[in-house]
Formats: sequence, structure tokens, C-alpha cells
Amino acid sequence: MSHLATRPELLARVRRIAGQVAAVEKALAANEPCATVLHRVAAVRGAVNGLLDEVIAEHLTEHVALPGLSDAERAAGADELLAVIRRYAK
Amino acid sequence: MSHLATRPELLARVRRIAGQVAAVEKALAANEPCATVLHRVAAVRGAVNGLLDEVIAEHLTEHVALPGLSDAERAAGADELLAVIRRYAK
Amino acid sequence: MSHLATRPELLARVRRIAGQVAAVEKALAANEPCATVLHRVAAVRGAVNGLLDEVIAEHLTEHVALPGLSDAERAAGADELLAVIRRYAK
Amino acid sequence: MSHLATRPELLARVRRIAGQVAAVEKALAANEPCATVLHRVAAVRGAVNGLLDEVIAEHLTEHVALPGLSDAERAAGADELLAVIRRYAK
Repeated sequence: MSHLATRPELLARVRRIAGQVAAVEKALAANEPCATVLHRVAAVRGAVNGLLDEVIAEHLTEHVALPGLSDAERAAGADELLAVIRRYAK
Repeated sequence: MSHLATRPELLARVRRIAGQVAAVEKALAANEPCATVLHRVAAVRGAVNGLLDEVIAEHLTEHVALPGLSDAERAAGADELLAVIRRYAK
Repeated sequence: MSHLATRPELLARVRRIAGQVAAVEKALAANEPCATVLHRVAAVRGAVNGLLDEVIAEHLTEHVALPGLSDAERAAGADELLAVIRRYAK
Repeated sequence: MSHLATRPELLARVRRIAGQVAAVEKALAANEPCATVLHRVAAVRGAVNGLLDEVIAEHLTEHVALPGLSDAERAAGADELLAVIRRYAK
């Protein structure tokens, strides 16, 4: 990911997710109610989906749509994106 | 979550996810290729979905289907589950 | 699905989805812009997710949480739900 | 969608989905077991997800990555794709 401009925001998102995952671990370890764990895990899911959307958007903009890329670079960028969409983004 | 028997496995899953999130952070900080970040975030997503399925299964078994619960306890357990499914589980 | 009370609403949802799928087919056949097709398919996806949530809610209420079910009936209802969640609801 | 070559396959997919939606309607109308309805709706969901992935792939290839597009065309194609991903593809 050589396009630095957007990274601070992504890093901040990833760190928030790390905090949310730590909160799930704490809830499990502290024997908190199942419903609390359920909501925290669901919140992590939402945050990870949001992060994935941002990384996909970033990749699409920088590695497929960016003016000045060669045809081969665009094709490679599109293939990487499709691999992720087809394998994971259900 | 008062049903302790299954917690070690859930805790282990959450810790693996914490490790995967740390790997995303590391990839961003180390300026690794966008495609690497994309795959790692997508892997986190898959792992979080798997964890959510397990917590849902656990909640369903222990707070809705468990023999011996009162009608009110079952209704409350079902409502908690539906709230999560309706709000997050898209 | 022997719990008739809720069926009219579910049937109406399914028929709306059938109409949305027909609109996708029409857009493809009429050579409409790709973005139109994209939005229509995404709308179908949202509607199908909503329907699945309703059927899951219905099943949970009637086949797992309902007062008066036997332990075996509840266990069977929960297993059916978990099979669907684990296999499809990603 | 002016790129005709791939449409027959997409049309065939949409028609299969229409058949699957009709099977859900039939199951509801025939008072079939809830678990049957659940599995059929979940199958529709999987098929619609698959179709959406294909339309996204098609759009990405033809409206963002295609050699010879103008910078403005690529930017517009990327924006359309991101709008769909951000609004629906959760």
C-alpha cells in the first residue's frame, strides 16, 4: 500500500477494531452476560465490514481507476480485487 | 455468559482474531502492498463471522433451547438474539 | 410452516422479491446501463436478507422459544436454525 | 450494460433465481415445514450474492479497468461501484 495519504485514517480504524476485540475478550474473561458478548462481537463485525469497504475503495481508486496506470497494472489491480470479493465478501 | 464449558474455545478464537487484527496493523505500518492488506482484512472478516456464528449458536442453545428454562427466560433469550440478527447480521 | 398467522406478510415479501428479480431480468434484456443492473441486484440482495431475517425470527419464535414445546422439539428447531446460520448466513 | 458478451450467462443466473424465488412462494403457499422455507430462502440468498459478485466483476472489468477508457469514465465507473459497495454490500 504505497499510497500513504489515506493510511492514518485506516490505521486509526484498525486500532479501534483492536480495542473492540479486546473488549470482547474482556467480556468473556469477566463472565459477562451472553447478550453483552453477542452485541460486542456484532459491533466488531460491523467495524470490520466498514474497514474492508474502505480498503476495497482505496484499492479500486489507487490500483484500478488511477489515471496514468498501464493496462497491465489496471488488470492486475482488478484481479486482486475480484479475488477478494469472490473469496470472502459474502 | 454463565455457561463456562464452551468459553475456552471462544476465548481462543477471540485471541486469534486479535492476532489477525495486529497483523493488519503491522501490514499498514510496514507499508506492505495493498493486496496484502486487503487479504488480511478479508481474513479478519471471515474469522469474525465465524465467531459471531459460534456466539449465536451458544446463545441459542443456552438461553432459548435449554431444557428447564422458564417461558419468560426463553422469550428474553430469543428477543436478544433477534435484536442482534436484525441490527447487525446482514 | 404450520404457524399460519404470519404467512400473508411473508408471502407478500416473497412476491415483492419476485417482482424485483423480474426487474433485474428486464434491465438485462433491455440493455440498460450496468449501474442500473448493479443497483437492482443490490436491492434484491437487501430484500432477500430482510426476508431471511424474518423467516429466522419466525422459526426461532415458533420452533425454539414457543411455550409448550417438548425439549426434543426445541432441540430440533435449534439445530435446523444453526444449520442455516452456519451454512449460509455469512 | 452495453457489453453484451457476458449477458447470456447473467440472464441465465437471474432466471434461475426467479425459479428459486417461485419455489419459496410455493413452499409458503403449500404450508411446507418452516425448515424447508428457511433452506430455500437461504439458497436464494446465496444465489443473489453470487449474481451480485458477477455483476460487480463485470462492472469493474468493463467500466473501470478496460483499456482505452478516459480518466473520467474510469472515475465514474469506480464511483458507481463504490456507491453499491458502501450502501448494500454488507
